[in-house]
Amino acid sequence: MSKLKAIEWVSSKVRIIDQTMLPREEVYLELSDYRDMASAIKEMRIRGAPAIGIAAAYGMALGAQGIEAKSKEDFLVKLRSISETLAATRPTAVNLFWALERMNRVAETGNDVAEIKAALLAEAKRIDAENEEADRKLSSYGAELIKDGFTILTHCNAGALATAGYGTALGVIKAAKRRGKNIHVFAAETRPRLQGARLTAWELKQEDIPFTLITDTMTGHFLSRGKIDCVIVGADRIVANGDVANKIGTYNIAILAMENGVPFYVAAPNSTIDLSLSSGEEIPIEERSPEEVTYFGGVPIAPEGVQVANPAFDITPHRYISAIITEQGVIREPYVESLKKVMK
Amino acid sequence: MSKLKAIEWVSSKVRIIDQTMLPREEVYLELSDYRDMASAIKEMRIRGAPAIGIAAAYGMALGAQGIEAKSKEDFLVKLRSISETLAATRPTAVNLFWALERMNRVAETGNDVAEIKAALLAEAKRIDAENEEADRKLSSYGAELIKDGFTILTHCNAGALATAGYGTALGVIKAAKRRGKNIHVFAAETRPRLQGARLTAWELKQEDIPFTLITDTMTGHFLSRGKIDCVIVGADRIVANGDVANKIGTYNIAILAMENGVPFYVAAPNSTIDLSLSSGEEIPIEERSPEEVTYFGGVPIAPEGVQVANPAFDITPHRYISAIITEQGVIREPYVESLKKVMK
Repeated sequence: MSKLKAIEWVSSKVRIIDQTMLPREEVYLELSDYRDMASAIKEMRIRGAPAIGIAAAYGMALGAQGIEAKSKEDFLVKLRSISETLAATRPTAVNLFWALERMNRVAETGNDVAEIKAALLAEAKRIDAENEEADRKLSSYGAELIKDGFTILTHCNAGALATAGYGTALGVIKAAKRRGKNIHVFAAETRPRLQGARLTAWELKQEDIPFTLITDTMTGHFLSRGKIDCVIVGADRIVANGDVANKIGTYNIAILAMENGVPFYVAAPNSTIDLSLSSGEEIPIEERSPEEVTYFGGVPIAPEGVQVANPAFDITPHRYISAIITEQGVIREPYVESLKKVMK
Repeated sequence: MSKLKAIEWVSSKVRIIDQTMLPREEVYLELSDYRDMASAIKEMRIRGAPAIGIAAAYGMALGAQGIEAKSKEDFLVKLRSISETLAATRPTAVNLFWALERMNRVAETGNDVAEIKAALLAEAKRIDAENEEADRKLSSYGAELIKDGFTILTHCNAGALATAGYGTALGVIKAAKRRGKNIHVFAAETRPRLQGARLTAWELKQEDIPFTLITDTMTGHFLSRGKIDCVIVGADRIVANGDVANKIGTYNIAILAMENGVPFYVAAPNSTIDLSLSSGEEIPIEERSPEEVTYFGGVPIAPEGVQVANPAFDITPHRYISAIITEQGVIREPYVESLKKVMK
């Protein structure tokens, strides 16, 4: 695959690949209403923190296109409501709020409605392009951590599908491969939504990177047997002290890696860093529908009516994180300082 | 449910509940050929270390019934081949080999074929009854560890379905509940075969024990948030130094429990203890079919032809085990001594 765009602006519409249908079918959706974009984010047709940020930005551009307003003030009121709809989709990934904030700021600085509409689209495209550039940079820095012959464990999907088109954790893996390093990946399937089995496996296959698919229950087994040289995951939010919110199950792997002396890396662009929160405990954790756990392709896997918990993310405390890979370079403890430096 | 028997001798046949069909359907199978019993064990229609031991014993009794032999020697040759077929089904749970050894020993001490056949059936029934008695005893000892108000995490299924009818890890939980303790269970779904979601959830529901079903990726999240007071799991083999083979994913939970200061208990009868091996590294780990990981109710969840690993068990080193609950009482480190004492 030369280039996969999970999300793209195409002649006044946004084209996304429906990630709920992968790997069985490659279905593309063309969205022209910001409400459809909000639904697509909620239903995880588009997912991954950076991609959600880009989706929110394009969602704002779509919404702006449709606004009929006589004054800038009227326009901004209507745009605010669009922004609120998009903000209410998913609470954990900070990229969503970061992108909306950028878009709202741009809107306020425009002179008239037509100018603001154009500026919003330009800003969304800029967010998209900057994200891709950031991924390429961080992937290049991260590739230095991957030695020839390494086996790398990853969780969920932090690849092209989750981003502007290159990937964070998977971007690092791709970059290492492209430098001719002989690598092997272990992909954890990542219940309940199986992003590892469905999406990461699909991307790795297309990139011709050799890999082994495992269930989440097997991560410790392979870590304890010395089969894994490092772990790399993405992030949904990194706060001031270096604590990381990422897909549920990330914390398990971080502890298992630490216990077995295996480095645990987090790869994420600056747009995922949120210095307004001081520790991971402050990050809101999305609770999703019980059916994600109890049904599998429409088939019930548990008795009717059981009580289910379904937190979509967990928090990995900074002390378990060997390094954070950003577009400014690879940073380490003390994160309070190194993150501040990166965000300057 | 007053009494659930996963396996039972009923007028010259063995009746089992087909555990691959639960919780959607309660299908009972009547087996009259030992080869069907071997297939049922391999295909996990009957599973759980103690239940596999009982299944092997009844399999021998079934096989013996069908042997036509003129001499004791001829009979024993044919019985040996039946024993080998049953021994070749699954390598990890030691109860299988323990039961076959008992059955073979009984066969050798009989005088003539008719006497041996009767003795084999009697021995199989004794193994069944002794296992249930052991479960009741260990459950009673284990219940002392469960305080009123406890939330208990369990993995896989170590309940009535996995045993002679009471359970080991779930037996302890049931016994605590029957003593009037107010408890709550977290059941990990246990990929790939989902014994937690399918079987433990089904048993807990029937026992009216309140529980929350979670994916395996969520265990660390709830342990780290102080939501869990102790972990109890069963075992497939416990060796001389206290290392435990149990369903894949058990090791993950043991490490996560230790890291969060939560006690991790293993409940198992003596028939699961194998003092012939000195450490967990010597336990053979069954590798099962890739389709268990890549298909879900007949539906593929990963791209075609991906490489998969599927170890069915992992090893939890003894240093992570707070106590082992046996029918002789609750034992602790040093396990080399306490296990020897239990097995005297």
